[in-house]
Order: sequence, then structure tokens, then C-alpha cells
Amino acid sequence: MRVVRTSAEAAFRADRWRAAGLSTGFVPTMGALHEGHAKLLRVARGECDRVSASIFVNPTQFAQGEDLGKYPRTQEKDLETCARAGVDFVFVAEAHDIYPEGFQTWVTVEELTQPLCGRSRPGHFRGVTTVVAALLSIVRPHRAYFGLKDYQQARVIERMVRDLHLGTEIRPVETVREPDGLAMSSRNAYLDPAARGVAPRIHRALSAAREAVLRGETRVSEIRGILARALAPGEDLEIEYADVRSAATLEEFSDGKARRSPDGILLAVAARVGGTRLIDNVVVPAES
Amino acid sequence: MRVVRTSAEAAFRADRWRAAGLSTGFVPTMGALHEGHAKLLRVARGECDRVSASIFVNPTQFAQGEDLGKYPRTQEKDLETCARAGVDFVFVAEAHDIYPEGFQTWVTVEELTQPLCGRSRPGHFRGVTTVVAALLSIVRPHRAYFGLKDYQQARVIERMVRDLHLGTEIRPVETVREPDGLAMSSRNAYLDPAARGVAPRIHRALSAAREAVLRGETRVSEIRGILARALAPGEDLEIEYADVRSAATLEEFSDGKARRSPDGILLAVAARVGGTRLIDNVVVPAES
Repeated sequence: MRVVRTSAEAAFRADRWRAAGLSTGFVPTMGALHEGHAKLLRVARGECDRVSASIFVNPTQFAQGEDLGKYPRTQEKDLETCARAGVDFVFVAEAHDIYPEGFQTWVTVEELTQPLCGRSRPGHFRGVTTVVAALLSIVRPHRAYFGLKDYQQARVIERMVRDLHLGTEIRPVETVREPDGLAMSSRNAYLDPAARGVAPRIHRALSAAREAVLRGETRVSEIRGILARALAPGEDLEIEYADVRSAATLEEFSDGKARRSPDGILLAVAARVGGTRLIDNVVVPAES
Repeated sequence: MRVVRTSAEAAFRADRWRAAGLSTGFVPTMGALHEGHAKLLRVARGECDRVSASIFVNPTQFAQGEDLGKYPRTQEKDLETCARAGVDFVFVAEAHDIYPEGFQTWVTVEELTQPLCGRSRPGHFRGVTTVVAALLSIVRPHRAYFGLKDYQQARVIERMVRDLHLGTEIRPVETVREPDGLAMSSRNAYLDPAARGVAPRIHRALSAAREAVLRGETRVSEIRGILARALAPGEDLEIEYADVRSAATLEEFSDGKARRSPDGILLAVAARVGGTRLIDNVVVPAES
């Protein structure tokens, strides 16, 4: 596995693959790789002739006062994870390369970034879409892989890629969970034992709400109530949002009735557990 | 010459050229081609193995109340111009293809779009950068050609391409002028004989200001005065701006002294002549 440290070299190598007629997959990451990332890499490896990944803790997607400075950085271990997954090259990017001197260009997706995490993390999605547009322009993969733990992010990026004709197929990949249901996340590393014990409540709440929907519950207020009761907010867990929306548009159900068809229902939670912000979601698909 | 009517076919053909190792040039236009466009096509033809052009009257770059509806559309003649210039394919784009259903993604360049035309045409540059990002993503040319009559646009697009790593070299091409100095523009077609007689005053004013700078004049107020006197605003010509700025950053000279080094001086005018908005500019380069 090759480690590439400039955008020019990443573009050059990826371009050579395309010119040779090879199919290419790309997994952009902020490092601190866990089993969720490993799955993205494995899925890419299975679907593409060549696979690249990037490691870049993107400063522009951290809102003011967030954890940019303390975000976990574990580069050696990350490179091992990539190598084991059969990645062909890893682009370890640097801020002065991704954001050249005088940088002043932003990519924004409007409606899809308004609710949920967009509401609580001002500027976050603008940072995500801008850096992903840049990385996709550099690497020009046929497919790029994103985990569904960040459901809104996956939808936003799909939208951006379509709107700007970036020519990459976005492949969302199922969330990987700990045995107790907690979604894998680099930020789980922040959890102390007490918080780690509380965190699985998020997935339990989502599962309970999903069960209710599958049993025929359509009242948004009731589904939210199930989420809230199971989350049991208090000293140990603070709810940022616990929401029920169209899985396609991320819009609310204006009449208060959650309908599975045609778009599916997104059940999504963001909560602070012991000072750490965690998100998770479940999609109840359209009835077939 | 082939006429391509979908982004998918344009992407497919351009990709095949790249895969074959050919160098590719691209000239995006809004149609209504004149000698200025023909020069862009000829320069591209001279520098690249394969040349494509696009014709698309981009609705998003027209501000509210502007001339989108009456913008000249001369497709048959345009295709002849392209064919004569040796273009390999012309992508005649349609709005529903460039802007897919549910479109909501914008590319914005911040500082460079604030002054000059950005001030008087709200949303204009956002429309330009978004459509050019999309077209460059579709065609992925090695080089793209832009006329310097739209000086600010060329600078904005250079910035965008660098910031988003679009991988295209932006080639600005000198303005082509009528014998009396009027810059070629599709909007010159709007000018009635009286307005056509007045319009060359813009270039004469810019030339007079350039002469003054070359003779050593540095006072911005004096250079602006020369522009204003030569433009002789009145019933027949209304000044929108007549400005003196850094040719690199488009910033004003904060101390009122126009310095040629290190960035050159931009002298730029926008004026309404007989109801038609015309722009033109001259750059006095840095002293070598």
C-alpha cells in the first residue's frame, strides 16, 4: 500500500487507474478508523478494481467550539487498517494543500442541510460538502463509500454529487454496531465507562420506535414520545434532537402522520452523553 | 462536428478522449457567438488535441429583472461558428439536465465576487460558478478558455478551480474589439445605431486612463476622474461603476495610490448605453 501526501500525486495515480479502464472506489475518512470504516473499505475492495482512501481531519466541518483540537488522531494504526483492508493508496491530506492560500470557495447544499445536525452545527455541512467536492475532484472515483451512521451526510453528499455532476456513484453502507447496539464512531473513544454504559440507550430507543412503526404506529407525536421515554434524558444523557422525518427529503410529516411510502421514515437521534455528542438513526423503508 | 445534447454523452465522449491520452480544451458559452468566442475556439484548437464547446443560456446567472428572456439565441449560426473553428463536439445543454429535479447545491466564491459586477448583479457570480463547476465536472477538460472582457469572471473561475481542485487550467484570452474599440459582446446586438455610436466611449475612457497610468499617474481619484470625464455620463450613457483595483485581488488601493507592482492594475467600467449594460476593462500589468 502506498501513502500519498499531496493532492497532485493522488490525482495523478487515480487518473492513471481510470485511463487504464479500471473501476475505482474511494473512502474518505477523518482517520481514527474503526470497524465501521473497515467495512467501508471492505465493501469498496469487493466492488472495485482499485481502492483509495483519504485521511484528513477537515477543519472546516467543525463548528466553533467543537472538538477539532482533540479529535482522535491515530495515523499509524489507521494506515495498518487500510493496508489490511487491501487499500491501494491512502491520501494523507494536509490543510494547506486541500485549502490553498487565499481559499474562498464553498459548496453548499441548501434544504437538506437545514434540519437535524444542520440546525445544531452551523457551517458543518458546508465544510463537509466543500471538502468532499474537493476530494472527489482530486480522486475522481467511480464510487465513493459513506457510512449510514451519518445518514444526513450521505443524503447531502448524494445531492451534491448529482447537482454538480461530479460523476461518482455514492454508496451508502450500513452502520456497524457494538454488540450492545452502540453505533461505531470515532467519538466513542471519548466515552468514559459510565458514559459508555449509557450510550446504547440511543440505539435501544431507535429500535423501540422502529418496532412501533412496524406495528403500525403513524402518529409522529407518539413515535417521538417512544424515543424520548426510551432515551430517558437526565444528568447522564441530554437530547439534542429525536426526530421523525421523510428518509428521502428529511422533511417533517406536515400532518403529523409518518408515512412509510413512498420515501421511508427516518428516525434520528443526536444526544450528549457525558459531554460527547453521539448520533444514530434507523430507517424504516417504504413498504414493498 | 458532433452535436451532443445530454451531459451523459458529453461526459462519455470527453472521458474517452482523456483515456486515449489526448489533451482536451473546452469553451463554455451562452451561445450568440461572436468574434470573441471564435478567438477562444481558435486558441483552444491551437493548444489541444480535442476541443469541445458548450452552448447554454444559464438561467441562474441572470439576476431578477435581467435579460434572460430576451438574451439572443442563434443556435444554427453558433453551430456553424463552432464547426468552422474545428470544434470536435458542441454540448447544447438543457436546464433540466444541468439542474436536475430537486437541485439545491451552489458553489460560491466569496471575496472576489463582492465588488464590481458582484455589487450590481446579486446572485450572478453564484450562478456562473455553479454552472461552470458543473460543466467542468462533466467535460473534465485539461484547459478551459474564458474571455478577458469578463475579467472578474475569469479571476473568480480561476479561484474556484484552484479551491475545489477541479483539475482544469483556466486560460484567459484577450478581448476582441470592433475597429472602433468596442469590446465584442453578445449584448452589443441590443444596441440601436445611436447607442452603438456612444458605446465606444467606454474603451476610449479605459485607454485614456491607461495612458495616464503609464505616464506615471498613481492617484486613484485622478484616474477615476479621467474615466468619468471620458465616459461623459448623461442621457446616453449611465455609469454603473468606473473603478481602479488590484488586478489580482480586485481589492481597492486602501491608501488611494494605484500600484502596478506586484499585481497589476485593473481599470474596469460597467455602463448602461441605451438601456444595454456593457462592461469592459483594461489591465496595466506589473512593471517587469
